[in-house]
Amino acid sequence: MGVRSTKVIAEEYAVKSKLIAEGPQKTFALVFDKGEEFIGALTSFAEANGMDGSHFTAIGAFRDVVLGYFDRQKKQYQEIPVEEQAEVLSLIGDIALNKGKPKVHAHVVIGKADGTAHGGHILRAHVWPTLELILTESPKRLCRITDEETGLALIDLNL
Amino acid sequence: MGVRSTKVIAEEYAVKSKLIAEGPQKTFALVFDKGEEFIGALTSFAEANGMDGSHFTAIGAFRDVVLGYFDRQKKQYQEIPVEEQAEVLSLIGDIALNKGKPKVHAHVVIGKADGTAHGGHILRAHVWPTLELILTESPKRLCRITDEETGLALIDLNL
Amino acid sequence: MGVRSTKVIAEEYAVKSKLIAEGPQKTFALVFDKGEEFIGALTSFAEANGMDGSHFTAIGAFRDVVLGYFDRQKKQYQEIPVEEQAEVLSLIGDIALNKGKPKVHAHVVIGKADGTAHGGHILRAHVWPTLELILTESPKRLCRITDEETGLALIDLNL
Repeated sequence: MGVRSTKVIAEEYAVKSKLIAEGPQKTFALVFDKGEEFIGALTSFAEANGMDGSHFTAIGAFRDVVLGYFDRQKKQYQEIPVEEQAEVLSLIGDIALNKGKPKVHAHVVIGKADGTAHGGHILRAHVWPTLELILTESPKRLCRITDEETGLALIDLNL
Repeated sequence: MGVRSTKVIAEEYAVKSKLIAEGPQKTFALVFDKGEEFIGALTSFAEANGMDGSHFTAIGAFRDVVLGYFDRQKKQYQEIPVEEQAEVLSLIGDIALNKGKPKVHAHVVIGKADGTAHGGHILRAHVWPTLELILTESPKRLCRITDEETGLALIDLNL
Repeated sequence: MGVRSTKVIAEEYAVKSKLIAEGPQKTFALVFDKGEEFIGALTSFAEANGMDGSHFTAIGAFRDVVLGYFDRQKKQYQEIPVEEQAEVLSLIGDIALNKGKPKVHAHVVIGKADGTAHGGHILRAHVWPTLELILTESPKRLCRITDEETGLALIDLNL
């Protein structure tokens, strides 16, 4: 592939990127107890530890969760409450600064008793009996800013 | 937010945490072959390499898998056998010491031929044709202890 | 467990492994914009930055995606087009060299408006309104080679 075509592709696909670590990073194991509310507990942990550029994965189980699906027309999250014990099959997310405070953004896939998978943006969730989370804190911070078209706080790598 | 309210929140949401790495960590790529049983192969790898505090993600495909859903009443995993080729869409897990030996804990989301997603705790699974796994070994170990209420071996960060 | 039985297990379960990092690694945050095609944009980023051994996770949303399910009989991906806005609940993948060029391999779980989860191998996908991806580049490269039985380009850790 010549320089010219590379340049064309680079212009077409200009995904924004930021080097957030090239040296050692801090990694934490977090274990949530029975009954803890996930978003509140992780936000509190992030505030207490001054975290402004972290990402994480987790597995475990929820006794209930309110999933969110973003409705493009209404420009808001439609709530999908799940009032049953479910395995947390995949929980992936990040922590970035929004209006100067750490904001947790997490998506989950849950598994019900029949093995079917469901999921969404996590609005609220109660852990039971455990949630095992691995969090990596990067030396560079990530910041969100409100997107006018959607009203959502999206990460802006220039901030 | 004042010091007082932060303190109240910190008491309400006292998620347990442990710094498991702040310097370099070892990262391994593992590739499972056709027919390999996932839990057995990864446990054997962990034993052979003395791993006691690792976490991983993977994608690939299974030719069959037995999913588990934890039944709160019976206090045991209900088995959900899936006897068909499925994409491994997300496989997240960790390795911690349980009674002195490495124990693999992994949850999976699989995709069937119609695109629907299913999943659970992995009890057994056979890879086909490949499974690509990235494992990070932390310098600090993680330990499990049997939880009396559920009978499950949960991570205790104080051990 | 005695030495003998450990040896037997090690022979039965000889998962292939490669240490891909034991020192610092580079970590990048990538944010995809409205309308960007995921596979093209990430491949272009990998080519522009000479990436040949990376892995990543992401969350966000797609306005459309073509999922793939590998058909064992036909030895090709069956296409499952999803022409609706969906949350990206889990996106996990890696970048390895295939015939000397970086190749993106990614699997996704999406969540529809009713909270059901679907997913597969990503053939094509358009982001809307954002996709937040964390990519780790390892010092050691990963290479793919065509598997004769399936025709798929699988990672070979000996290359």
